Amino acid sequence: MATAGKVIKCKAAVAWEPNKPLVIEEIEVAPPQANEIRIKIVASGVCHTDLYHLFEGMHKDGFPAVLGHEGAGIVESVGPGVTEFQPGDKVIPLFIWQCRECRFCKSPKTNQCESGWASDRLDVMAGADSRFTCKGKKVLQFMGTSTFSQYTVMNQMSVAKIDPAAPLDKVCLLGCGVCTGYGAAVNTAKVEPGSTCAVFGLGAVGLAAVMGCKAAGAKRIIAVDVNPDKFEKAKVFGATEFVNPKDHSKPISQVLAEMTNGGVDYSLECVGNVGVMRSALESCVKGWGVSVLVGWTDMDDVAFRPIQLIAGRTWKGSLFGGFKSKDGVPEMVKAYLEKKVKLDEFITHKMTLNQVNDAIELMKHGKCIRTVMSVSPQ
Amino acid sequence: MATAGKVIKCKAAVAWEPNKPLVIEEIEVAPPQANEIRIKIVASGVCHTDLYHLFEGMHKDGFPAVLGHEGAGIVESVGPGVTEFQPGDKVIPLFIWQCRECRFCKSPKTNQCESGWASDRLDVMAGADSRFTCKGKKVLQFMGTSTFSQYTVMNQMSVAKIDPAAPLDKVCLLGCGVCTGYGAAVNTAKVEPGSTCAVFGLGAVGLAAVMGCKAAGAKRIIAVDVNPDKFEKAKVFGATEFVNPKDHSKPISQVLAEMTNGGVDYSLECVGNVGVMRSALESCVKGWGVSVLVGWTDMDDVAFRPIQLIAGRTWKGSLFGGFKSKDGVPEMVKAYLEKKVKLDEFITHKMTLNQVNDAIELMKHGKCIRTVMSVSPQ
Repeated sequence: MATAGKVIKCKAAVAWEPNKPLVIEEIEVAPPQANEIRIKIVASGVCHTDLYHLFEGMHKDGFPAVLGHEGAGIVESVGPGVTEFQPGDKVIPLFIWQCRECRFCKSPKTNQCESGWASDRLDVMAGADSRFTCKGKKVLQFMGTSTFSQYTVMNQMSVAKIDPAAPLDKVCLLGCGVCTGYGAAVNTAKVEPGSTCAVFGLGAVGLAAVMGCKAAGAKRIIAVDVNPDKFEKAKVFGATEFVNPKDHSKPISQVLAEMTNGGVDYSLECVGNVGVMRSALESCVKGWGVSVLVGWTDMDDVAFRPIQLIAGRTWKGSLFGGFKSKDGVPEMVKAYLEKKVKLDEFITHKMTLNQVNDAIELMKHGKCIRTVMSVSPQ
Repeated sequence: MATAGKVIKCKAAVAWEPNKPLVIEEIEVAPPQANEIRIKIVASGVCHTDLYHLFEGMHKDGFPAVLGHEGAGIVESVGPGVTEFQPGDKVIPLFIWQCRECRFCKSPKTNQCESGWASDRLDVMAGADSRFTCKGKKVLQFMGTSTFSQYTVMNQMSVAKIDPAAPLDKVCLLGCGVCTGYGAAVNTAKVEPGSTCAVFGLGAVGLAAVMGCKAAGAKRIIAVDVNPDKFEKAKVFGATEFVNPKDHSKPISQVLAEMTNGGVDYSLECVGNVGVMRSALESCVKGWGVSVLVGWTDMDDVAFRPIQLIAGRTWKGSLFGGFKSKDGVPEMVKAYLEKKVKLDEFITHKMTLNQVNDAIELMKHGKCIRTVMSVSPQ
């Protein structure tokens, strides 16, 4: 391409400081270095973790940054040493690396590669370096991705090459939310056929968890949310029952225990709230109940009584649904193309990058499942 | 026997009220009812859970009671409907039932039978009924066992028949502590060959956990205790390294992470302290680390950061080491007779039932591993 080897000037939504709207700026994106790929981002979802960084979990060393980590795009150019990708490939940026060489990548037990930004700077949610500058200042790459930019540069260990037939404005959701929820049920909880599940929180991650429970063969999938409007959507993904904690004076764990002869086999917390995490654990049946933390928060402690675990429950957590990122995402794209996994039904709003602050407001107030923004013209 | 069908008067150590020494009393033990067995208790260990009930977790409705839940004895007589046992059989009383009919007994995933005292009255740590009276008052049966009495009456679902060759003053330890620790490693954590383990707390349960880790093929077994005197004993059971948290200014989880390239594969909390529970979780390696709560406490919450689980750790709990009680205990007795499991090495003190308060004092001050009391003459 004509731009290969040159600095690209393009639009990006820059988070200059915490608690302020993003600013659409012209930024400079340097060419890819060794083992790096420069990607034109075509579409990006807006995920709650973007808000978390901006409004809740913000760390002063994490700014300025370009947010966005749920995108899809096309390879513009590649740096030295890149053989797996070429310009024109459709790709999904990955916030977890898969280097295939570390002890984590070599183990079938985990998807938590030791390489990449997350291994050292998880608190800051960005690597120390980036290819972005704006107004003479270095701008950080949020979660190693920064999909709220028309171009981004990523290491090849953190990019998934996907089927050329994939519609980027749909499969972008596989960059975070849908894989996270679906995989939490299928890979982390390992939901068994015929079981009873409870999913707490019916945002995109929770709905994807419902879809994962259904795919795994769960018989009862109880959707739990304080917003009853979400149940219709949850049914689309496979929920069989709905419980609104606000309709009950008893603790939700007791309500679920009464509905299920002592508790559910699997519970998935898809809110990111430490109180809900405790409730989700307590909602599991003793003996073999498995509860999985899927929602992200790291500001407060979760508390629980030891007897909850001693009684035979297991507590796990899931990051990106336990998918080995480079291997798992192309498979999920294939599953979508084969109509085994739904994506379109998550998308309630379509916008452009210029409207990113509107998209954030919608999410902040729970008024959307997913907004997908078109970022660059395809 | 001459006593069959009659009330037996015998000696027992009665806990009349919390925080007071036990009193050796003459009690009346009624004959066994349908499906019950009356057992002459020959030997009993003193376990920390006895102290817990008496001094810490006491519930006013749990008194008066006969404590003791780590015993072994001989069947004196059986009630109607009992076919599996006959007078003279050597047995171990079990504080978890195995009814073989409930959904928990039918599942290979758990040992938490739905029958027995624990299903309804766990807070009180005793069933509502018992065959004991003393001075005209009903005396409760602690944990469904009450091995600090020369005779006790138990349902046949909660008694294990063991090899007649078994020495009762040794195998009594399989009624609680040794199975609890050993099974937590082997059954609950499912320690894999070649792995690195940390065991927190080197009482009988912790030492048994060390033995379990070794039996499972662990390569490194790091014993953690604030009392360095315990390391010599831990080596006997298979510990390869010792860490005293008091020797370090850093948190113990950091010390262990530095020793093990990021954390241990398995950690077992054998203290029953909520702060140690948190440390044990944090000492596991991300990705696949498994931490198991083995020590008992239910007075305080445990707290932790969600990221600890989201990073790929699993938190479990173990009750009686995950052994299906009637099946597991005879197998462990066999393993002892075949010298595959150590028991003698746990016993640091031998006493009689009359010295029960001395045994409790020793345990309270961490001056023993296990005291075994002779209860009835054999």
